[in-house]
Amino acid sequence: MNFKMMGRFNALILVAEAVFMIPAFIIGLAYREKAAMSFLVSIFITISVAAIMAVFSRGARSAFYAHDGLTCVGLGWIFMSIVGCMPFFLSREIPSFIDALFEMVSGFTTTGASIISNPEILPKSILYWRSFSHWLGGMGVLVFLLAIIPVSNGKEGFTMHILRAESPGPDVGKLVPKMRITAATLYITYIVITILNVIFLLIGKMPLFDALCTAFGTVGTGGFGIKADSIAGYSPYIQNVCTVFMFLCGINFSCYYLIMMRNLRAVFKDEELRLYIGIIIASTVMIAVNIRHMYSSAAETIRHSLFQVVSIMTTTGFSTFDFDIWPSFSKAILLILMLIGACAGSTGGGFKCARLLLLFKVMKRNIAQVVNPKKIKTVRVNDKTIDERILSNTSSYLSAYVIILILSFIVISIDDFPVETNISAVISCFNNIGPGFGTIGPMCNFASFSVLSKIVLIVDMLAGRLEIFPILVLFNYKTWTKR
Amino acid sequence: MNFKMMGRFNALILVAEAVFMIPAFIIGLAYREKAAMSFLVSIFITISVAAIMAVFSRGARSAFYAHDGLTCVGLGWIFMSIVGCMPFFLSREIPSFIDALFEMVSGFTTTGASIISNPEILPKSILYWRSFSHWLGGMGVLVFLLAIIPVSNGKEGFTMHILRAESPGPDVGKLVPKMRITAATLYITYIVITILNVIFLLIGKMPLFDALCTAFGTVGTGGFGIKADSIAGYSPYIQNVCTVFMFLCGINFSCYYLIMMRNLRAVFKDEELRLYIGIIIASTVMIAVNIRHMYSSAAETIRHSLFQVVSIMTTTGFSTFDFDIWPSFSKAILLILMLIGACAGSTGGGFKCARLLLLFKVMKRNIAQVVNPKKIKTVRVNDKTIDERILSNTSSYLSAYVIILILSFIVISIDDFPVETNISAVISCFNNIGPGFGTIGPMCNFASFSVLSKIVLIVDMLAGRLEIFPILVLFNYKTWTKR
Repeated sequence: MNFKMMGRFNALILVAEAVFMIPAFIIGLAYREKAAMSFLVSIFITISVAAIMAVFSRGARSAFYAHDGLTCVGLGWIFMSIVGCMPFFLSREIPSFIDALFEMVSGFTTTGASIISNPEILPKSILYWRSFSHWLGGMGVLVFLLAIIPVSNGKEGFTMHILRAESPGPDVGKLVPKMRITAATLYITYIVITILNVIFLLIGKMPLFDALCTAFGTVGTGGFGIKADSIAGYSPYIQNVCTVFMFLCGINFSCYYLIMMRNLRAVFKDEELRLYIGIIIASTVMIAVNIRHMYSSAAETIRHSLFQVVSIMTTTGFSTFDFDIWPSFSKAILLILMLIGACAGSTGGGFKCARLLLLFKVMKRNIAQVVNPKKIKTVRVNDKTIDERILSNTSSYLSAYVIILILSFIVISIDDFPVETNISAVISCFNNIGPGFGTIGPMCNFASFSVLSKIVLIVDMLAGRLEIFPILVLFNYKTWTKR
Repeated sequence: MNFKMMGRFNALILVAEAVFMIPAFIIGLAYREKAAMSFLVSIFITISVAAIMAVFSRGARSAFYAHDGLTCVGLGWIFMSIVGCMPFFLSREIPSFIDALFEMVSGFTTTGASIISNPEILPKSILYWRSFSHWLGGMGVLVFLLAIIPVSNGKEGFTMHILRAESPGPDVGKLVPKMRITAATLYITYIVITILNVIFLLIGKMPLFDALCTAFGTVGTGGFGIKADSIAGYSPYIQNVCTVFMFLCGINFSCYYLIMMRNLRAVFKDEELRLYIGIIIASTVMIAVNIRHMYSSAAETIRHSLFQVVSIMTTTGFSTFDFDIWPSFSKAILLILMLIGACAGSTGGGFKCARLLLLFKVMKRNIAQVVNPKKIKTVRVNDKTIDERILSNTSSYLSAYVIILILSFIVISIDDFPVETNISAVISCFNNIGPGFGTIGPMCNFASFSVLSKIVLIVDMLAGRLEIFPILVLFNYKTWTKR
């Protein structure tokens, strides 16, 4: 294990985080909030810790393996969350440390599950930091560092292992041969989409501060709202803008690269994209039919159902309506959408459409082989043969996914909430969505869970965002013993 | 497709079923029940249908492939259920055909989910047939035929494909080189266990009729009770006898063969058996701690928790207590046990411990390979290397399992019962358990579901018992078009 290299990189993560806290500090000053001081203190502590880490990790070897990449990303996210929650905790806006950590992890992992019942009474600086964490976590802080800092000059292995460990999806493709250019391209696309989102929200007469926070939550597919009723209080136009941008950010970002390269044909033929759009349309129609009696017009019905389907499918978690009171059929569809999630290589979480597609194809292939054992067939996606190892890993991902869901469900059941609440809490946190049903419905929050349950859900959110392996590696004792 | 061969075999299945109805008819006569007539009519119809089928399938080719085996078993179970539910329907004890079919499929698949609110008012002959269907379905009617009828003389391929398709587990091993002897050995073991169970129940002063029906439900891991309160009204001794025999029938029957061969070492080292026992002990302890405040003594607490854990884990579904009022933690554990199920090669249903074991090992192997991509490792169970194809099929089984659960859950949600009821209904039927939570708790029944939901649950029960593939093959249009 190359702990020194990890130390150097983690010091950089903390420095970047401290820099990102500066706007929140300025906002605090501008609005003359007491919380501004907590940002100043946090920045100071963060820089100090980073300095100490940097000193201790001088003279790092350059050899860096997949295992190191996973550990580094896992540790990086944990440090980042502990440091990031200091402003919440120091300002006493969230007096319990576990609650502050829960809120921060929920932010960075773009979950959007909150322990705050009414965000409207929070200081602006805190609200800004809370929403900005979605934006930072959406594309990945480590990917950001890879894009801007020449730490890895000439070390393609290091960059690749970090990018692989932090980016979602069964297989991370390089857009261009150089990993650093890939990371930079992703971030530029991300920034452009964010700016467009803010502009469209401003056109709808949303105040600038609201537009920024809402865009962070939308583009990062996070879901923290700055209002107690999420997006319900805004105009239909703004709701529709959110729907469009959530949808766009649930798409694999490499599609945007293909569009820039004018390769529209490849985009239209992308099987994952087709599946993603197909599921959204089918779910929206089924829910719209099921809830039509609850709204006055067809347009309103479709607006609510489309918004909610896109919000859940992209794992954002915004809501325009308390979907907990929808009929069981609609809730069942939403629960399943929670499990599926967005496209690989997007800012969304969940199991990912790409994996669903692979599993379907493997299943079809294997059934054909049970029936006709002599035929040997490969699995193809977008006309490319998929390596058997990726197929096996995808299947194992499903196993790990199910096992983590089950264990978490059992532990949080100790709190004795109804089964529906417990199942949806685990699914919602693990897939980085936010709201669930019952006690944690879209108009409720996670405050009433016990400390143990909150810790389990924190681990779930991290495991979900980092796609299990980096967190599993941290729990493996060999990580800490092997040289 | 060798439809003529299937026709011949299905005719035999119907003849066997008619023969098995005779005891029910005699019981009906003995108790002077009107229902006796409905058995006589059913026997007559069954034999007539069988005769017609036999006539139409003269001159069958002997070539018989895996595909044919799957189709044959799928069709056989459907015919058997339609014919078997005639006595319920003709006697007007279950006036709705779908309800009668539901009850029969639930019987044959050893599910034990009932639409009858109070079985105590049913005629004895009907009660007998209902419980006996568990016994017949537990080890498999087709396996029974293979054991006794020389239809397959010299046709090992036919026997093997049928046995493979009907027997549970990821890989069906031959106990002895000849498939027919294997089938016979399994049935003899099964009969011996049943007789022992009846004797132990009689020692506890249970009436003979009750003992027979209870033993059928226990040994077949079915769960139809002949009392409205399942096993709750019987003495602790009888409850414990049930616990022991449910446990024994959840074990892979090849273990009994090994014991007969005096190979105790192999039994003790069997990894699946260890996992099965480990899960039972761990779950019992956790539930006992969780429910201890509800009972007066430790012995009573352990009796109820052990009974319920074994009943659910073996997918029997008997109950000694209304576990729907247990705390959420205990219910969560039971829900997960429902998903796991018993050992492969037992009469129990569910996902099977053997598959869980394989998936765990594949996952461990794949994680090791992500961390260290150059290492190539095989997966070993009981010191034998498992073929990659079986591993891939097991993973696909999980995919198919999850997909079927999800689709069924969505469809039955149209009935607008609570999410907890819908989830547990699907899990309970698909894994052949019986009771669930809420509206379908152990003291309730499935009568209130709509016809659509009942049809979905019927398909789930069959798919669960036959381990998905035979039913998937029936839904594949190629089955009906390909020559």
